[in-house]
Amino acid sequence: MPPQTTLDIQAARARTSFDPDSLHRVLLSGHKDPDTRKRVAQLLADDPKFDKRARPYLSRPEQIERGLSTTKALFDLVDRHDLDHNEYLEALVSAMDEPVGLNLHEIAFTPVIASQGSDDQQAQWLPRCYNHEILGAYLQTELGHGSNVQQLETTATYDSKTDEFVLHSPTISATKWWIGALGVLATHGVVQARLFLKGKDYGPHLFILQLRSLDDHSLMPGIEAGEIGPKVHGAMGSVDNGWARFNSVRIPRAHMLSRFASVDPKDGGTYKTPPHAKLSYGGMIFIRAQMISNLSWREAKAATISLRYLHMRRQFADPEVKTGERVERQVISYPGVYMRVVPELANCIVFMLAGKDMANLYHSMAERLATGDTSLLASTHAVSSGLKVYVSTRTVAGIEVFRRSMGGHGMMAASGVGRVFATELPAQTYEGENGVLSLQVARAALKSLAIAARGGDRAKALVAESPFDAYLGALSPRPASLPVAAPSTGADAQWTDRAFLTRLLALRAALSVARLAERMQRDGAKFGDLSWECNAASDAVVEAFLAKRTGEMLEQLEGAGDRERDVMQRVVNLFLLSTLVNALAPLLELSILVPSSAAPLRAAQAHAAKALLPDLVGLTDSFGFSDWELDTSVGNADGSVYERMLAKARADTELNLGTKADQERLYRDYIKPVLERGKRRAAGGRTDEKL
Amino acid sequence: MPPQTTLDIQAARARTSFDPDSLHRVLLSGHKDPDTRKRVAQLLADDPKFDKRARPYLSRPEQIERGLSTTKALFDLVDRHDLDHNEYLEALVSAMDEPVGLNLHEIAFTPVIASQGSDDQQAQWLPRCYNHEILGAYLQTELGHGSNVQQLETTATYDSKTDEFVLHSPTISATKWWIGALGVLATHGVVQARLFLKGKDYGPHLFILQLRSLDDHSLMPGIEAGEIGPKVHGAMGSVDNGWARFNSVRIPRAHMLSRFASVDPKDGGTYKTPPHAKLSYGGMIFIRAQMISNLSWREAKAATISLRYLHMRRQFADPEVKTGERVERQVISYPGVYMRVVPELANCIVFMLAGKDMANLYHSMAERLATGDTSLLASTHAVSSGLKVYVSTRTVAGIEVFRRSMGGHGMMAASGVGRVFATELPAQTYEGENGVLSLQVARAALKSLAIAARGGDRAKALVAESPFDAYLGALSPRPASLPVAAPSTGADAQWTDRAFLTRLLALRAALSVARLAERMQRDGAKFGDLSWECNAASDAVVEAFLAKRTGEMLEQLEGAGDRERDVMQRVVNLFLLSTLVNALAPLLELSILVPSSAAPLRAAQAHAAKALLPDLVGLTDSFGFSDWELDTSVGNADGSVYERMLAKARADTELNLGTKADQERLYRDYIKPVLERGKRRAAGGRTDEKL
Repeated sequence: MPPQTTLDIQAARARTSFDPDSLHRVLLSGHKDPDTRKRVAQLLADDPKFDKRARPYLSRPEQIERGLSTTKALFDLVDRHDLDHNEYLEALVSAMDEPVGLNLHEIAFTPVIASQGSDDQQAQWLPRCYNHEILGAYLQTELGHGSNVQQLETTATYDSKTDEFVLHSPTISATKWWIGALGVLATHGVVQARLFLKGKDYGPHLFILQLRSLDDHSLMPGIEAGEIGPKVHGAMGSVDNGWARFNSVRIPRAHMLSRFASVDPKDGGTYKTPPHAKLSYGGMIFIRAQMISNLSWREAKAATISLRYLHMRRQFADPEVKTGERVERQVISYPGVYMRVVPELANCIVFMLAGKDMANLYHSMAERLATGDTSLLASTHAVSSGLKVYVSTRTVAGIEVFRRSMGGHGMMAASGVGRVFATELPAQTYEGENGVLSLQVARAALKSLAIAARGGDRAKALVAESPFDAYLGALSPRPASLPVAAPSTGADAQWTDRAFLTRLLALRAALSVARLAERMQRDGAKFGDLSWECNAASDAVVEAFLAKRTGEMLEQLEGAGDRERDVMQRVVNLFLLSTLVNALAPLLELSILVPSSAAPLRAAQAHAAKALLPDLVGLTDSFGFSDWELDTSVGNADGSVYERMLAKARADTELNLGTKADQERLYRDYIKPVLERGKRRAAGGRTDEKL
Repeated sequence: MPPQTTLDIQAARARTSFDPDSLHRVLLSGHKDPDTRKRVAQLLADDPKFDKRARPYLSRPEQIERGLSTTKALFDLVDRHDLDHNEYLEALVSAMDEPVGLNLHEIAFTPVIASQGSDDQQAQWLPRCYNHEILGAYLQTELGHGSNVQQLETTATYDSKTDEFVLHSPTISATKWWIGALGVLATHGVVQARLFLKGKDYGPHLFILQLRSLDDHSLMPGIEAGEIGPKVHGAMGSVDNGWARFNSVRIPRAHMLSRFASVDPKDGGTYKTPPHAKLSYGGMIFIRAQMISNLSWREAKAATISLRYLHMRRQFADPEVKTGERVERQVISYPGVYMRVVPELANCIVFMLAGKDMANLYHSMAERLATGDTSLLASTHAVSSGLKVYVSTRTVAGIEVFRRSMGGHGMMAASGVGRVFATELPAQTYEGENGVLSLQVARAALKSLAIAARGGDRAKALVAESPFDAYLGALSPRPASLPVAAPSTGADAQWTDRAFLTRLLALRAALSVARLAERMQRDGAKFGDLSWECNAASDAVVEAFLAKRTGEMLEQLEGAGDRERDVMQRVVNLFLLSTLVNALAPLLELSILVPSSAAPLRAAQAHAAKALLPDLVGLTDSFGFSDWELDTSVGNADGSVYERMLAKARADTELNLGTKADQERLYRDYIKPVLERGKRRAAGGRTDEKL
């Protein structure tokens, strides 16, 4: 007979109300091709060079080596199976399950040349990028400067005599730092440096720089560089992050990326202003836009492992069952457990939808940008910033909820969820630190509010056409009567009415932003002193956006049958109710709801979470991860948790403790002397006192 | 001139309103001796065997070796400096800054013999424990059983023919797992196993078992054991956690710890019931009681590093200062930053006070227990459980707030805060998983509520004498008028009135527990189905307790002058206001406050946080950590952040990447082939397509 854990997971799977494979295709539709995804993951799984077993045991030098050896193995695999560019990227960014320095070449170095280089520069450099004749890094942040790009200290001074720029690091805090791929891998970089022309400071611009010799990989003259050292929690241990200092390094004028701004050599150097300054923002939005989907699918791994394990783990006898019964109650059946994890699962699935939405918004904007139309730029920037902040914060927190819900075994590296947490943790910090980035969201919201408040056609157009500002419609006409009449019991059907729930979140967002404006206008508060309130207002705006857009997306789930539609509706309903429960303080404070509505709302949330219990394992199956992709001892498709944990501990002994001889040495050198000391003390009669 | 960061930290220090050294003594008073603490930390700092530099670079086998080598070095140091038992424990548990397997000998193995062994057993075993002739582990949890000790599967069957117990692991899920020191170090263990006498199951009891030979450390016959593998985030990498299986291992009857229960050999084995079953709970309470102080002082390290760094980090120009000014604004000055970290600092300091309070409560209980008086047992169990849940959850979350507030550099292992997080993270899970343990707190609160509701002398005595139940006084007499009249502005002095704020928290706790009781009595809900609500009720009860007790402790700060008293009052005031702000949803929902009181409350919190800004660095100084203890590049006493970070990256290159030859090999084996492939592709004319 199979172990109880296997019976449990099979029973849970049998309860599923929909077809997980159909839902898998619905979730991936418009994001990536399910068959390509599966095929690429299988190619890596079959290649022993990508074996993951040693990972949690490695030293930092070994982690760095692993990053480079998998990089080389990836190109071997590409050549062997003649993968195309999309398949290569799927393997690198997703299937490898382990970021490496090469990622920066693809997501930062090459794109910045593609978007900021002139046509000539693109023709010269992009083929070398695509062939990987050169391997690149993007050198922006410095020891003393992260969020505030405008204050970067590295200088690029134009020397008209030689028609060159002189790159220089004038201070310690100007040292480039955190630069992915710079520590070991990169041969070239794009450097952000302040452009100085005839003594005048034109602010940060981009310059292509050769970092290392293509003959022997030694650093080029005038450049000092190295690796910055390990990250917290061993996060991204196989990525080489580097630092660099420049001692008057000369580069030709042609190496300044000059799609939008350039230097003309006449008159000792003349600055040519970019025609459309904002056109250069597209790349940043692209990276953030991609993060939404990526984060949701990484969280889905944690959700899969945790939810499966919580069906297999049993603890404490069911009080309903008579004493003496051996089988304990499944942990997932306790409200104290499922009220934690099921809302996080709903978030995760909603973020998958939001990721696709974001990608579509980006492509609409990019199409218009290509024709010089910047009309969607500001709102797409605001949406991508707001979603980046919100989704990175929530997915990181959610991954930790999934890990912690697993109790003791969630602390094992072998459970696999800790690794997901560590890898995604930095997403809150890179591409715009969340606390700083949310200020931009709040600023955009205040601007929109001002437009809406002035009324007229422009206000109408804003609410109707800008998806991120639609919530402002809740204010016009002014809501006649607040508080909103809400149902008096949790079982009322109104709690499943998306329009009603979305309206509550819209009101909350609109009134939060209005209150912010009031603080500035009435109380004279300065924007810089409202950063705390701005964080909350930004979240409120994003939640209103997610509620509206996700509802719309539910209407058009490509390829979904009735049963898949039904479970997705229940997921989104739980997301809305959980979001409202978390927003209870502002909902009550802003008198959108009365205190007596709080208990029914929470009851409705509990009801919605419970209603998803029979479908949880089916939902994890619909994410479509193979056991190899999950890399876990406790959340595999077939159950058998404890057998696998014990087998792994036995099998990994040498990776974990060293060879048999090493283990004997540990005893001889350290343990034996302590025990012999104890014997001597006992022989000396030391029995009556401690130590 | 010293770097800007040094000037910044000096300026911050100069603003301090109190004497940090005096406050240091106040904070440690009744907890540990400041001079011993300092002296022991210095002894370790001076011994190269405890050098921390290599830590973040090690492989798992190297981490395990480090745990053992520092263990041996610790005994050498004890002998060399003739440390007494307290100094030894200070070195092991606190100064070493790195848990090792030996900790379990001291906090679990020896104490369980001391509390559960008969007088004879204590006389036989304790001297061997104190001398470290044997090294012990405490084998309780199993692969399939953690929180529910009553369902452990390992059996100890009495064989009357030989007067022995037979220890056996009947299933895979019965495998002992997670056992600290069992993986490599321990020679002996105390094993929890179900006692079977003449076929009858008497539930879990404790048995002393020799695990490994004292001659060569090989496993004893019938025992299979090993290490379970790394923990998430590299947490406690130098602790060997083990697993073990028993194949009918025989131990003499005298090895059953029999202070409270024993087996008489007559009639084929007769069970002797413990006289006072509850007397055996003391040890568990002791461990939890100690955790409160320990957690607060670990969080204090994170607070010190983060708050110092936030004074030195500058980002974005102050809008008040005219453009062109080179010096940016100190990050700590932004409300979006200080409203995050300053409340966490206040929590941390309040938890230090709570830790001392908890230790006193424990000692009162232990004194009574020694005379057979169990009257304080139940309430001390509830307090220690509630505080353990609350303080471990809040300190772990707080440490992460401190780390995240540091932005990018907070992601560096060298910043030192990530290590604190990883080490404390498991505290939420061990010694009672927080979600499960909080149920016991809620259950105790419901019991107390029932007593209070019946009224009479017993109710009066409960509220007057049981510190954990005092909040129930808010219900008797029934509060005449709710909502409470609260000030209409944030500047009102009532927001600094501790009695007023404490009453709000007491009302919230009492009404939360009352609502829970109502759910059971009126709605017929079962306790097991209220676990989600119980978590929240437990927090409410703890917050009411902390408010009351901390206020009382403020009145008697031993050794504090007026200025130290003043800053501590401001700290506690911020703690109370922040706790209320976080409880706004229940305060409004329960109609304790009206919606219009919310904004003044939040304004009062913001005011209290701002009022602590000039004292933040002084408060970190008052924690008294040396640079060696902090082990950080970014939060040292003297500032100079960036210089230190760069110097460390340069100095650690070989630890980080391997020797020069290793680094050359990385290029030759992995990078060069990729670049040569690129050259071949270019030569083949592949310039027009990606990849």
